[in-house]
Amino acid sequence: MVKPDLDLDDLHPSLADDDLLSMNFLSEVALRYPKAISFASGRPIDEHFDAADVHRWLDLFLAQENVDARSLFQYGPAKGVIAGHVARQLAVDEGIDVDPASIIVTVGAQEGLHLVLRALRRDEKDAVLAVTPTYVGLTGAARTMDLPVFGVSDGADGIDLDDLDLVVAQVRDKGLRPRALYLMPDFANPSGRSMGTATRHRLLAAAAAHGLLLIEDNPYGFFGPHRPTLKALDTGRQVVHVGTFAKTVLPGARVGFVVADQRVAGGALLADELAKLKSMVTVNTSTVAQAVIGGRLIEAGYRLREANAAQIAVYRRNRDQMLAGLARRITDPQITWNTPDGGFFLVVDVPFVVDDALLERAGREHGVLFTPMSYFLRGGRATSQMRLSFSRVSPDEIETGLDRLTALLSSGGARV
Amino acid sequence: MVKPDLDLDDLHPSLADDDLLSMNFLSEVALRYPKAISFASGRPIDEHFDAADVHRWLDLFLAQENVDARSLFQYGPAKGVIAGHVARQLAVDEGIDVDPASIIVTVGAQEGLHLVLRALRRDEKDAVLAVTPTYVGLTGAARTMDLPVFGVSDGADGIDLDDLDLVVAQVRDKGLRPRALYLMPDFANPSGRSMGTATRHRLLAAAAAHGLLLIEDNPYGFFGPHRPTLKALDTGRQVVHVGTFAKTVLPGARVGFVVADQRVAGGALLADELAKLKSMVTVNTSTVAQAVIGGRLIEAGYRLREANAAQIAVYRRNRDQMLAGLARRITDPQITWNTPDGGFFLVVDVPFVVDDALLERAGREHGVLFTPMSYFLRGGRATSQMRLSFSRVSPDEIETGLDRLTALLSSGGARV
Repeated sequence: MVKPDLDLDDLHPSLADDDLLSMNFLSEVALRYPKAISFASGRPIDEHFDAADVHRWLDLFLAQENVDARSLFQYGPAKGVIAGHVARQLAVDEGIDVDPASIIVTVGAQEGLHLVLRALRRDEKDAVLAVTPTYVGLTGAARTMDLPVFGVSDGADGIDLDDLDLVVAQVRDKGLRPRALYLMPDFANPSGRSMGTATRHRLLAAAAAHGLLLIEDNPYGFFGPHRPTLKALDTGRQVVHVGTFAKTVLPGARVGFVVADQRVAGGALLADELAKLKSMVTVNTSTVAQAVIGGRLIEAGYRLREANAAQIAVYRRNRDQMLAGLARRITDPQITWNTPDGGFFLVVDVPFVVDDALLERAGREHGVLFTPMSYFLRGGRATSQMRLSFSRVSPDEIETGLDRLTALLSSGGARV
Repeated sequence: MVKPDLDLDDLHPSLADDDLLSMNFLSEVALRYPKAISFASGRPIDEHFDAADVHRWLDLFLAQENVDARSLFQYGPAKGVIAGHVARQLAVDEGIDVDPASIIVTVGAQEGLHLVLRALRRDEKDAVLAVTPTYVGLTGAARTMDLPVFGVSDGADGIDLDDLDLVVAQVRDKGLRPRALYLMPDFANPSGRSMGTATRHRLLAAAAAHGLLLIEDNPYGFFGPHRPTLKALDTGRQVVHVGTFAKTVLPGARVGFVVADQRVAGGALLADELAKLKSMVTVNTSTVAQAVIGGRLIEAGYRLREANAAQIAVYRRNRDQMLAGLARRITDPQITWNTPDGGFFLVVDVPFVVDDALLERAGREHGVLFTPMSYFLRGGRATSQMRLSFSRVSPDEIETGLDRLTALLSSGGARV
């Protein structure tokens, strides 16, 4: 008989997954309490976004000798049209020296992660590891392709290398192949934590010993003290480096990239294999959007960190104000928080469960929002931590928001 | 021990797949013989692409009351920001009457297909059907997610409904669930074939009886006689309609959409489920690119077919010239071709095998390129057919290209 509509049970199981549902709950709460001050959103500041910049950058890109509108606005190569510009920026800003041929331009970092995971999942025996708590975009992407993710503790210095050894062994004992370890070494989302340079060297050695690729995701690297990226330290082509211009130029462009210089059979690079997959996901990244980013890089003389000086100062000011504001307001010794040296996020530990119910109450009764840390743990395991984002709040909002948060915290919650 | 690089055998098997490799071979031959006249590329004409249009469309979109650059250039909703504009255009141009809430804006039609297939593949028991020969983007996307595709013959009128019954039964006999049938009812890629209106009604009834969704891909609908799309005839929410602005505005914008008004558990629409998956693939479609397309739709008063009058005339002229040119040159009764009434493609049948070797020889010795029809068949089964695209060739190139093609055909090939 006619059965035109669908049961959720008949669709891919990721659609009933906690990781996807919890993020939906957060968006829904934010919509329900539009006047709440949000320490939940990790969006970049946007006061300076200006259509005139977008027009100028597009024209700058088109003014290059080898570019004309007719070919630019056609279908483009799967690897993109600004890999050379990205390579120059990485060399200038990060000391990452790579051939543009090893770069694929993607629809934000998210598509980059998606392609890397897709390439590495040969079959149901493959698994990836991720420093935990971890970015939901990684676990969510893995979930949509039935790829298991195993957590590695982040320890005090961004990764617990003993735990890495243990998890690799456990995954192998299950008959699975650990293919890669995903991490954000700088000002991680959600922990705010960064990895010391010595630990980076040790991690590279450990990854080599385990035959693991490292998937380095670097959205926040500009926004704090500059440490060498894993890719800059990588002498053995063990690091797949994922970047984005969402935080440093415009989120709306949706332009990111992957540096994948690993050699595959027959002289191809991993970037070429990712491009084959990309041709079946999005064909190519919008060349209009690539041109906007390319023009921005040209205008900045490829010194994009320097071009972000004003934004960097805002995020630093916000962090300082958040830390001072918490210290001034909170006297309960059971409530503690970390002190990230950069990025968009910090983590508060409270003596009760931080869950969707608390978030709902925070929105309804106190007009303040945060992200429960459970969202960043597989299976949404309950914790007593919240992530506070300070990237897109004004000084006034920070003070008012912290007043409201303090009121919420004083009102308590379900004891742990 | 250190093993930083990768074996192709360790990567997803789609990367060693014939479908992906053959398209790569075509691109490579095109690069090797840049002076060859290409009847291979299905790109739209681009003489009229102009940066001034892009600037103007972006400004037109930004001039709307409810839009400002600050929010437009931020992260946007996964479903997109121009669904309302797309809905108006579909109503005006196609008589498709849908709530904008059932539309998700995607990175071209390709991401739309990707999301639909991903949603429908619950597990290894799911399969899709596709009218054969079929678009490589469909089979390629299915391959990257280990989803089997079963071909249904296109017959004389765009689908052989007896074969559909047979294939559904065969797939069920294998213990698989046929979830959907993919097709391009109008001026199909690669066959050029269109489906009569009566057959569309019969197909809707057959799909209802089989409990199959229809995935209607409509990139070429404007470029020939206007028949009602399956979605316009759909009274039972059985059609998922995939569209793109690549051929009607700019390929470089990479903006397409899916109309997915099917109801899922709890009042959600399939479009909402696709949006959850999209958030793990590309987060959202570039809002810069969406604004360009949105502005184009506003400028056209949502009459995009009318706005494409000049392009429609070029494609019609090219088709007429191709058909007349073939008729004038080819006297061998063993060489025949079809007569599509629109679109970008026609198919030539020759009395020898059309394979990569012939394509290579065509490029090298004759300076002309085409697409072997084997590319559009699962497993690259050899055939004696070639697809000729006439979308992006000038009148002179058509004449010279047909002279060269005739010379190739006269020189023969491996007899079937």
